[in-house]
Amino acid sequence: MADQENIPALLRVLNGERLERPPIWIMRQAGRYLPEYRELRTRAKNFLDFCYSPALATEAVMQPLRRFPLDAAILFSDILVVPDALGQKVWFVEGEGPRLEPLIGQQDWRFGETEKAIQRLAPVYEAVERIKAAIPKDTALIGFAGAPWTVATYMLQGRGGDKDDARMEVYRRPEDVDALLEVLIETTAQHLAAQVKAGADCLQIFESWAEGLPPQMFQRVVIAPTRKLVARVRELGVTVPIIGFPRGAGAQIGAYAHETQVTALGVDTQTTADQAREAAPIGMPIQGNLDPLTLVVGGKALEDAAQDVLIAFRHGPHIFNLGHGITPQATPENVAKLVNLVKGGV
Amino acid sequence: MADQENIPALLRVLNGERLERPPIWIMRQAGRYLPEYRELRTRAKNFLDFCYSPALATEAVMQPLRRFPLDAAILFSDILVVPDALGQKVWFVEGEGPRLEPLIGQQDWRFGETEKAIQRLAPVYEAVERIKAAIPKDTALIGFAGAPWTVATYMLQGRGGDKDDARMEVYRRPEDVDALLEVLIETTAQHLAAQVKAGADCLQIFESWAEGLPPQMFQRVVIAPTRKLVARVRELGVTVPIIGFPRGAGAQIGAYAHETQVTALGVDTQTTADQAREAAPIGMPIQGNLDPLTLVVGGKALEDAAQDVLIAFRHGPHIFNLGHGITPQATPENVAKLVNLVKGGV
Repeated sequence: MADQENIPALLRVLNGERLERPPIWIMRQAGRYLPEYRELRTRAKNFLDFCYSPALATEAVMQPLRRFPLDAAILFSDILVVPDALGQKVWFVEGEGPRLEPLIGQQDWRFGETEKAIQRLAPVYEAVERIKAAIPKDTALIGFAGAPWTVATYMLQGRGGDKDDARMEVYRRPEDVDALLEVLIETTAQHLAAQVKAGADCLQIFESWAEGLPPQMFQRVVIAPTRKLVARVRELGVTVPIIGFPRGAGAQIGAYAHETQVTALGVDTQTTADQAREAAPIGMPIQGNLDPLTLVVGGKALEDAAQDVLIAFRHGPHIFNLGHGITPQATPENVAKLVNLVKGGV
Repeated sequence: MADQENIPALLRVLNGERLERPPIWIMRQAGRYLPEYRELRTRAKNFLDFCYSPALATEAVMQPLRRFPLDAAILFSDILVVPDALGQKVWFVEGEGPRLEPLIGQQDWRFGETEKAIQRLAPVYEAVERIKAAIPKDTALIGFAGAPWTVATYMLQGRGGDKDDARMEVYRRPEDVDALLEVLIETTAQHLAAQVKAGADCLQIFESWAEGLPPQMFQRVVIAPTRKLVARVRELGVTVPIIGFPRGAGAQIGAYAHETQVTALGVDTQTTADQAREAAPIGMPIQGNLDPLTLVVGGKALEDAAQDVLIAFRHGPHIFNLGHGITPQATPENVAKLVNLVKGGV
């Protein structure tokens, strides 16, 4: 019989346990709000090189763990390593975000092969191995990838911002978009499976651009591909829990939670705990959803908002997290205060 | 007894009737997708001057009515005439949108007086009178204003884009934000009442920035101020129907529909008809929610999407509209096709 004390709290909750104090991790916990990260970042000449350096990625993961008693580490990488590995040109413009050579406007969309992409991603799996060896035994290691639609929007448009052009492409070339999503489903499934093989204890699928889609399109580009992705990951022999995080899904979270077969539901800041519990299958672990801006503001606003989240989600399995990634303007002091508060300190 | 034939279809639906063919109007139906509007716009040196010219505003309203058999006209104006009339500096940067001298960063927030603001807005009410005289009798005239929170975000930040700074100000200076909202509630109520006095048959409140708010903040800055606004408009003797359009409210539309006392609910593209009907009080008229991008794409995508909306909302009082304003890239031909389709043409 497994000794419960040795199982990381995050995994206990992902297995359906409700803990008196929820485990906590923070989306983008390794990142620009930490001065030591900003220093570390200068050691690679661009962001993708940084992601593909197992040594730098491992050090980035360790930085927040040294400061705060967090319950999980998450692989340091980017959702756009998948298109990069598939042969699309990807680069990052400082202070502006990612750029890709957009598929929109190209007559024929050419994608690389999954097998070669996974070979190119070997440094990511090496990073997972190193991180696994470096983190404490009671800290869970989370692997991740972008959901097919979210990654496709970047591949189609070549950048972030509003997703109107990607959405129009679904109207204009539905079969071509489906074909792109199929390539992403297979490559992402193998990418996630390789992370688990390398040591990841659980997975998170980031659907960062679920918002604003008409219901039929939400079914076609978010729910159906995510369900296929989860099924394919399982087919590849992966049994670890999978957290789905459909940011901006609004009233569609119920359909997402029920139809995709994810293990746990990440909810954004806008969703109430009651709505999430009602929308999700009974007993599904729920992760979220503190407003990241409270980590910029601090003080009583942070305390009140964190208490609200603790109280609102207390009736079921809960993983404390933000409703969106932490911002560069957040302070390490506010993060320390939050982690202490969630852990039951004053 | 009123002859039903003489009551505009839009008003019949707002009174709770379900019509075989729903009335249709289009958010921003007078706008940049029309070549004649782009020509007309050049006759004023800036956008606010255009809004404050009763002659130009009336002509802008008439342009789409000449092309399409729409069921409603909507006043041509802007939600930012309210801060302008309150004395805040407002200007429009071509191709970028509105700019204001932001309140954030100022030690003391000073607001003008409601009474003087309403005096300054006299040209708007003159435009309403002229429009009322110019439109056909079976065309309903809609007056409008921005909801207090949406207008406050522009006043606080000085521009559109993400609303993080406005949201942080709610954490940092909650009482000051409440005071700002109170000024906006009173001024907006009087602004709406004056439009009805000048001839508006019904009203729409645009809450364009309902998205991304934590639930408690949604209650504080969206629901409570909108409820107060509607109550104050009623106190001023206004009895016409009021459509509330909380874009991006996601799973909060139920609370909005039940607690604000609006007559009808405008829903965005992401919300399904079933969710809207379930969320709203029984029998509440619902307006929406075609994806505006289908008016850019046209063809079968437009036909299919329009039919989906017609079918999905057919079980209750429905006003056909988009889920968001029409974009400048839409074509008049696609709008003609849509209106024809909704009216029962081929």
